[in-house]
Amino acid sequence: MQDSLPEECYNHRKIEEKLRRVFFLSGYDEIDTPLFEYLDLFEGATASLKQEQMYKFFEPGSRIMVLRPDITMPIARIAATKMKNHPMPLRLSYIGSVYRYEGRGHTRHREIAQAGIELLGSRKPEADAEVIAVAIESLLELGLSNFQIDIGQVEFFKGLLEEAGLDGEKSESLRHLIDQKNSLALEMQLKELAIDADTKNNLLQLPMLFGGREIIRSAMKLTKNERSIEALENIDQIYKLIKGYGLSKYTAFDLGMIQSLNYYTGIIFRGMVKGMGYPICGGGRYDTLVSEFGVDLPATGFALQTRQLLTALERQNKLSTLPVSDLLFVYDPIVDCEGYKVIQKLRSEGLRVEVFLSDESGPSAEILAEKKGISKIIRYKAGKMEEIYL
Amino acid sequence: MQDSLPEECYNHRKIEEKLRRVFFLSGYDEIDTPLFEYLDLFEGATASLKQEQMYKFFEPGSRIMVLRPDITMPIARIAATKMKNHPMPLRLSYIGSVYRYEGRGHTRHREIAQAGIELLGSRKPEADAEVIAVAIESLLELGLSNFQIDIGQVEFFKGLLEEAGLDGEKSESLRHLIDQKNSLALEMQLKELAIDADTKNNLLQLPMLFGGREIIRSAMKLTKNERSIEALENIDQIYKLIKGYGLSKYTAFDLGMIQSLNYYTGIIFRGMVKGMGYPICGGGRYDTLVSEFGVDLPATGFALQTRQLLTALERQNKLSTLPVSDLLFVYDPIVDCEGYKVIQKLRSEGLRVEVFLSDESGPSAEILAEKKGISKIIRYKAGKMEEIYL
Repeated sequence: MQDSLPEECYNHRKIEEKLRRVFFLSGYDEIDTPLFEYLDLFEGATASLKQEQMYKFFEPGSRIMVLRPDITMPIARIAATKMKNHPMPLRLSYIGSVYRYEGRGHTRHREIAQAGIELLGSRKPEADAEVIAVAIESLLELGLSNFQIDIGQVEFFKGLLEEAGLDGEKSESLRHLIDQKNSLALEMQLKELAIDADTKNNLLQLPMLFGGREIIRSAMKLTKNERSIEALENIDQIYKLIKGYGLSKYTAFDLGMIQSLNYYTGIIFRGMVKGMGYPICGGGRYDTLVSEFGVDLPATGFALQTRQLLTALERQNKLSTLPVSDLLFVYDPIVDCEGYKVIQKLRSEGLRVEVFLSDESGPSAEILAEKKGISKIIRYKAGKMEEIYL
Repeated sequence: MQDSLPEECYNHRKIEEKLRRVFFLSGYDEIDTPLFEYLDLFEGATASLKQEQMYKFFEPGSRIMVLRPDITMPIARIAATKMKNHPMPLRLSYIGSVYRYEGRGHTRHREIAQAGIELLGSRKPEADAEVIAVAIESLLELGLSNFQIDIGQVEFFKGLLEEAGLDGEKSESLRHLIDQKNSLALEMQLKELAIDADTKNNLLQLPMLFGGREIIRSAMKLTKNERSIEALENIDQIYKLIKGYGLSKYTAFDLGMIQSLNYYTGIIFRGMVKGMGYPICGGGRYDTLVSEFGVDLPATGFALQTRQLLTALERQNKLSTLPVSDLLFVYDPIVDCEGYKVIQKLRSEGLRVEVFLSDESGPSAEILAEKKGISKIIRYKAGKMEEIYL
């Protein structure tokens, strides 16, 4: 967690404003959820975070509360309760921070600034494609271009597990090794499992199944189990839609990207900027999450990490410099009080007007303007304006 | 703490945007401080909050941390460290929430959404007048008019205390009774104190010293102690400046408004909207606060309570309705994929375009548009657009 000084804050707000506008024009309504939620909310069957990662508050007579580690879950809560009678699909967006504790190092306290959307109420691949398209349009709007959205489909892996009769701890361990692309450890682990050679080979292929559309075709040849095949058909359909949008150059596939199996139920995606080691966005389909609140609402969405975007833009020299004041206004507010009317008028025209607070011990207006990079001084006296350009 | 659904969130963001613009045009640079701070920061000599009001986090090997109960203090910290070499005065602004625990009732967890400014590096009444003027211009920009900024000066009371030789617990008790305008209890308490009759009478007058400029003159007659007289001259000077700005109709005086004596060192003010029982803004001068960080930097500033402003605007029927989408776009994205180009173009023109996600079991586009209040449908097929107005 860190201070955001004027120039950084200015650019961060610009990012948020641009994203807010993209979300709005795409039909998403912004909502705001509280910083505190009950711990229970994040401990259901679809939990993707550990208690250890959450900031907890204890109070006698109350359930344990946490600082929200995620905003998707509070949105699911709201969609299933306060908004369940709204026409579907629901398109919702948010801009806000989430808080996670990593338990080591100087960055163990993590304030993750996010901006995201959730599209609730549609099972269609069109919904997933829309969400990915909004992510891409968002990144383009910010001025980024050298990014790639890697798309996976967790059901493909789940189908392979089912076929092999694996579940519980073993499958979690395989998932982790595949997601980490740790082929060596994966091979060792697979050797110890009593499953047929074909399935072993398929699971071993997974970390390599990333690249262009051809990997969907390669994966098709690996298995005949219906769940996996359906997953590949789904991802292929989403690809066709994105290609139709003219955005497929920003996408690739990665069937070995398999996080949070309890949480995600379909496609899963992650955006990377070339040369940066951490993702700038992530998302996917989570059809069972909202049903924890008693309403069966399929859903898909993403979150952009706005501080990471700030870093990405900075590295590409795409940040703005902080605008200095357009002019420094010098007057005696008691004697020449109509000067304030002039200031009001200039500001109403969109000019940034800083008033010089004269101080005998301080610098003159000229020196102050020079120090701050302000290029114009207006001296107002007895109804007359003198303009000085520096 | 509560959810902010689309219409409320939309209006809250509008308030923040307008305030951000007023602050910017007035020369204030926005900064952002972390949610977590060390408890120590809020426990110095100028502390205005109790430990009990703060959300604390404990971790072995670390100092106690809190959720920021205030943003002025973190800004003072930043001004005295990371920004101490910037040209003075520093004009800084912020938009964010602070967190305080009230210990009872359903609203005991308080998330207070604020937007404020701090003007650091000037002792001049012009700085105080500027800050009050920015507060007034902010409220006017939001469309409020029936508000009043009550201005006090804590040094007037401190002078009276000094004159009477009172300090510590007794003065704190008097301060509290005067601030609460509890004249009866104040009289009882004063009877028990061994101070002269004149001073007793002066202190007893304090809760009644509110109204127009005439109360400054009345107060002048009460005492001859230099500190109190200087305070009155200071507040009168600030009044003249605000009158020069043409904004004095929004101000009144209240010398009995005396909060946080350790924190404030000059004027203190509070904005009220007629018919609402809680303030919409508060501020004042705090010349000793920054010196806790080793830099002697006089300062003045305010915070607006943006959720209270939302309520005030709602009561005056000045909130906007949430904009619905400008049109519902119906097409087959696989067959008529150029439709997406049309959508991109419409959005680039500033139109809010919602894509219809057809679903056999769901409502038709016409029914959905009607339900949502969308007045136009575009059906795109084979390169042709059919516009339907509802």
